[in-house]
Amino acid sequence: MQHPIPTGFRLAGVHCGIKRKATNEDLALVVCDAPAVAAGVYTKNIVRAAPVILDEQRTPTDQFHVLVINSGNANACTGDQGMRDAEQMTQLAADACRAAHDAALVLSTGVIGVLMPMEKVQQGIAAAAAQLSNDEASLIAAARGIMTTDTCRKIASRQIETSTGKVSICGIAKGSGMIGPNMATMLAVIMTDAKLGANDAQAMLTEVTDDSFNSISVDGHTSTNDTALLLASGQVGTAPLAGAELASFKNALLEVCVELARMIADDGEGATHLITIRVNGCATLADARRIAQSVANSPLVKTAIAGNDPNWGRIVSAAGYSGVDFAAEGVSLHVNGFLLYEQGTPAEFDDPKVSASIAASRETDVELTFSEGSAGCRFWTCDLTTEYVHINADYRT
Amino acid sequence: MQHPIPTGFRLAGVHCGIKRKATNEDLALVVCDAPAVAAGVYTKNIVRAAPVILDEQRTPTDQFHVLVINSGNANACTGDQGMRDAEQMTQLAADACRAAHDAALVLSTGVIGVLMPMEKVQQGIAAAAAQLSNDEASLIAAARGIMTTDTCRKIASRQIETSTGKVSICGIAKGSGMIGPNMATMLAVIMTDAKLGANDAQAMLTEVTDDSFNSISVDGHTSTNDTALLLASGQVGTAPLAGAELASFKNALLEVCVELARMIADDGEGATHLITIRVNGCATLADARRIAQSVANSPLVKTAIAGNDPNWGRIVSAAGYSGVDFAAEGVSLHVNGFLLYEQGTPAEFDDPKVSASIAASRETDVELTFSEGSAGCRFWTCDLTTEYVHINADYRT
Repeated sequence: MQHPIPTGFRLAGVHCGIKRKATNEDLALVVCDAPAVAAGVYTKNIVRAAPVILDEQRTPTDQFHVLVINSGNANACTGDQGMRDAEQMTQLAADACRAAHDAALVLSTGVIGVLMPMEKVQQGIAAAAAQLSNDEASLIAAARGIMTTDTCRKIASRQIETSTGKVSICGIAKGSGMIGPNMATMLAVIMTDAKLGANDAQAMLTEVTDDSFNSISVDGHTSTNDTALLLASGQVGTAPLAGAELASFKNALLEVCVELARMIADDGEGATHLITIRVNGCATLADARRIAQSVANSPLVKTAIAGNDPNWGRIVSAAGYSGVDFAAEGVSLHVNGFLLYEQGTPAEFDDPKVSASIAASRETDVELTFSEGSAGCRFWTCDLTTEYVHINADYRT
Repeated sequence: MQHPIPTGFRLAGVHCGIKRKATNEDLALVVCDAPAVAAGVYTKNIVRAAPVILDEQRTPTDQFHVLVINSGNANACTGDQGMRDAEQMTQLAADACRAAHDAALVLSTGVIGVLMPMEKVQQGIAAAAAQLSNDEASLIAAARGIMTTDTCRKIASRQIETSTGKVSICGIAKGSGMIGPNMATMLAVIMTDAKLGANDAQAMLTEVTDDSFNSISVDGHTSTNDTALLLASGQVGTAPLAGAELASFKNALLEVCVELARMIADDGEGATHLITIRVNGCATLADARRIAQSVANSPLVKTAIAGNDPNWGRIVSAAGYSGVDFAAEGVSLHVNGFLLYEQGTPAEFDDPKVSASIAASRETDVELTFSEGSAGCRFWTCDLTTEYVHINADYRT
């Protein structure tokens, strides 16, 4: 699929030696030559990487110029030197693009607790700045430059018509994978050429992130570096989007973010199934999310799906310990459209048939219905296989 | 080790056919011929098995006579018929021991959502009632009768001297394992011949459970059937224990419960390491427990220990997303006594040496220190191996 690069953006991805393998890009630049809007949503972990601390101070802004991203080193738990390195990365990126120092942002992902190899980073930024382009090869190189153990690059895009022209949205993301001896992170960068107010961009990104990047789980382990950025060049249109057009932009942004989020869950370490959990009939959205997350993080549920097992007892009981109060006799459960549990009572179903439906598809649908109200949500996760354990336990041996 | 059976108790364990294999006991009786005290602590899952609902209504009591326990069927998510079956099980057990109907309690563990095979249960209760004894063989048969996929029986005991005689405490437990296509549960039954007030027994059991059975995790999946019972025959002494003697009894009870809880974590499915997590320096005990639980449930931490990997980034970041607020720069971490992370900064340590210390021992010690206060806790879990995934995903194939 051809992904349109929003007007005003140039990208590059290079290998500068943070990762060992020379064919693996490990540094990317995303540049907007004119001042742009940037909004950010960051990890809720108390232990925050230096780039997260820095970017939080600098967003939202309408003076954004350049973003530098590296993979292979998370610059997390690196103390004062880590903060200085993050600042220097933005300085180098800003200098390379003749932008103000604080018009630059930085994202890092990879090994925790190791100081950034700044000499390599400096060379990488210079090399990337020399290759900036708005062609698809640059987009792909940048998308590859933020990967850790992702098995595939993650790009999603949408276009919508507005009264002042066609607006493009294009995002890149990386998923949960291991690098070196430590965990990696989820990163997403969404570019658009829409004209957006900085506060609108921030509010939209926060809201959309809750329904996408904050609604996925691979192993329930929130990292120190998770970040989603929305960058808006404002090259299409004269006044910031508002009213119905802003709403339609938000829908398209949500679609891009959900598509990227699903790609991250689908590419979870060792995954053989992408699991969509739908929770309906809750008193509040927060309740629905809490139940969905409890089911998504249950190793018993995840191993059952890996074994093509419609194990409704594990799903219903994972809802039961979520901390949300509900009437047990009002719970129903569908898996892949089959009714397994109805109003608190086991339903009669064709076990081998349901099992075969799980085995036949990469995607599994789990739908839990409660009798408390009308709030609901979607949540995405993946199954838990022996390959996950191998990736995360055996890489030293 | 010889375990003293507290005076006043008789036990039996038999095979009645709930489990397929004839050498696996699947039904146990614990009988006190004179009225005894019984206190219970139950699962916090909203979805509760019939025996849990019934026993909750009947405890605490000072009129306890007989407990029937079966493995192989959890009698959970079985609707009204399940409640009738649980009641009938207590009726059958009470009749067999010539006790009042409501002087009986029932525990079940095993497959969810399948009606109890009451004919087999009836025969089992009759057979067990004919074999009741206070010898060690009966204790072992009862301990075996409550096992599901536990690889070993779990018995712990202590004796303490009181002014009115020697008091014995003896407990049996079963751990987290799978049976049939569904999850099983944690059960524990602690017998003592001490004379205890029913309210004292309940308060002690609740408190001690928080520091033992509620401080372990195998996969974070709270079951529908979890129960701990304290049964006190009152055969030693004339007045209920009080003051310093009650405190010393509570200490011994805690030791028995911690020993059983550690056995459950150690026998977690596929486990190769028992992990003790110590959390110190928190503002509150609740904070310490929340952090310990977050670390204990992280698949990334559990796979790291399985791989003998002193992966401090995973441990520190799991604390960071626990939901507890703390100063990141005040965190220190020891693994097996080695300092890996000091006041928010990576410590220099001999990585292969720490790894070798994990590989060399069945037990791994993780100690996290914070700078918020003086509250702390202990928590036990096990590592996550490919064998866990095999047990829980592949048993149908």
